[in-house]
Amino acid sequence: MSDITHTDVLIIGAGPVGLFAVFELGLFDMRCHLIDILDRPGGQCAELYPEKPIYDIPGYPVVGAQELVDKLLQQIAPFKPGFSFNRMVTALERLEGGGFRVTTDENEVFEAKVVVIAAGGGSFQPKRPPIPGIEAYEGSSVSYSVRRMEEFRGHDVVVVGGGDSALDWSLNLQPIARRVTLVHRRPEFRAAPDNVNKMHALQQAGALDLVIGQVSALSGEDGALRSIAVKGPDSEVEVACTRLLPFFGLTMKLGPVAEWGLDLHENQIPVDTEKFETSVPGIFAIGDINWYPGKLKLILSGFHEAALMAQAAKHVISPKERIVFQYTTSSTSLHKKLGVAD
Amino acid sequence: MSDITHTDVLIIGAGPVGLFAVFELGLFDMRCHLIDILDRPGGQCAELYPEKPIYDIPGYPVVGAQELVDKLLQQIAPFKPGFSFNRMVTALERLEGGGFRVTTDENEVFEAKVVVIAAGGGSFQPKRPPIPGIEAYEGSSVSYSVRRMEEFRGHDVVVVGGGDSALDWSLNLQPIARRVTLVHRRPEFRAAPDNVNKMHALQQAGALDLVIGQVSALSGEDGALRSIAVKGPDSEVEVACTRLLPFFGLTMKLGPVAEWGLDLHENQIPVDTEKFETSVPGIFAIGDINWYPGKLKLILSGFHEAALMAQAAKHVISPKERIVFQYTTSSTSLHKKLGVAD
Repeated sequence: MSDITHTDVLIIGAGPVGLFAVFELGLFDMRCHLIDILDRPGGQCAELYPEKPIYDIPGYPVVGAQELVDKLLQQIAPFKPGFSFNRMVTALERLEGGGFRVTTDENEVFEAKVVVIAAGGGSFQPKRPPIPGIEAYEGSSVSYSVRRMEEFRGHDVVVVGGGDSALDWSLNLQPIARRVTLVHRRPEFRAAPDNVNKMHALQQAGALDLVIGQVSALSGEDGALRSIAVKGPDSEVEVACTRLLPFFGLTMKLGPVAEWGLDLHENQIPVDTEKFETSVPGIFAIGDINWYPGKLKLILSGFHEAALMAQAAKHVISPKERIVFQYTTSSTSLHKKLGVAD
Repeated sequence: MSDITHTDVLIIGAGPVGLFAVFELGLFDMRCHLIDILDRPGGQCAELYPEKPIYDIPGYPVVGAQELVDKLLQQIAPFKPGFSFNRMVTALERLEGGGFRVTTDENEVFEAKVVVIAAGGGSFQPKRPPIPGIEAYEGSSVSYSVRRMEEFRGHDVVVVGGGDSALDWSLNLQPIARRVTLVHRRPEFRAAPDNVNKMHALQQAGALDLVIGQVSALSGEDGALRSIAVKGPDSEVEVACTRLLPFFGLTMKLGPVAEWGLDLHENQIPVDTEKFETSVPGIFAIGDINWYPGKLKLILSGFHEAALMAQAAKHVISPKERIVFQYTTSSTSLHKKLGVAD
């Protein structure tokens, strides 16, 4: 069993609302650790629409989604939060003496006095491609992300897709795989042109195969893949394949949250509007994942919820301490925490 | 009686929260008019601490108070709100056929279907200087602001104070008054150096008097001031004075809001957290002036309250219209309203 990481507040989800929660909690001296299923902070903003402009963040007539995430990271930097990316929280249990134990799909264990669920629409999960029998190979020969490149060394790797992930991993795995074959349904790609050019160069040098078509069948046994059939416009070809990496985009699912014993309201977590606490004391839910009368799934609302939650979280962690409400504009004690004291 | 100005939503208070309400209401096609007792938008931000940095606006690691106001004005510009500055709302009545009539201290009349109170800590009101019997001259010989310069023409004007307002009005009234005397308790001023220099130049040219000391007594009858006594460090002098303008700073008072028949909770207006509606249907309260369990007087919270209020206001104004919740990032119809359509 791995070591236990201890923190004051464990935040599930590192989207804009989870990030801003670090700020509000930090003002009250609470240390935070964030866990996110994506490989970087920003949630939907960074994953689904990094270059899209947002017009309804107060004080920003327009702001790019990634720009907003970058600003939030800068804003919370004084509080030095911990991050675990590429991890899904699989279990959340209450500890006997108070506080919670959180376990990830890599069996890391965290213990925290307060848990904040800021998981947006839930977990981003890869879309399963419509290939008959693919479930039997998942977790062994079929993966939807690359966690450790070494697992692909010496294999016949087939990457399926036409976006940045497909191109990135075709190029990154090419030097260590026995052979990389990129399969895409049409000759045009949605990926960075530079990477498309690199891929074509490797293809022309004979170091990588490109097959236009759709994967129609898998061959293998006991979870071990041997080859795949790719149906092209005119013909079907058989491609050697011991590791298959389909990139068919992401979908959002509530995921394991549904199993943590919290009350749910149509896949959202009901909270009160004073503390934004769930049906389990000490577990809070903020942002798109919570529900209360009037709820709007606005980033702005999650920010407000984070501020009120932080007061309540402080009461959980330091029940005897009197909370003094101070303004960042005028409080020298807050200026010190923010690193802007004269 | 003056003409009646009609608008969808009348917003009392043009601080950051009142300004952002224009944005949220505008997304649902509601036209807004704002009334503020100050002479410019921005409320406390612009009046009390325009140059101070704020650290807790999400997405702004730091932002100047005036800078935030400027950004909000830019953000709401597409919705072309109306503004009435230097006005206090003195009366708020419900109309027979629905909607409300709002009257200002200048007897302007507004009619609106919805009223939003975003008045912060209430009205900024001038501090009364500690001069015995001054109340008897208020409204006639004693004023705390200059609304019409003509009322000072030909008078012996005494301006009291050492800040920008005192210097500004000493210089502005000097050409039209019979005589301007500036009274300040010490020779140093807190005003713009350029204006202090101009004042000293006028003094040396014999066109303006400067008296160091404090006003200790008023002489006159029936509200008509004749002269004042100024007690200096060594002596007391009598100064001719038919108009007195003391600038002793501003204080915040709930003001006439208390008389509008709304329930109050320790000088705040209780609202629900779904619509942020007061005890009177159709009148909403957002920002520092409202109260609900967990309430924090954060600009951020007022922004969130504005967003939820806008949904409810739309129901009041167009009860039969189905509200479609759309995101500014993806909705082409919202892009058109914001003037950013391709």
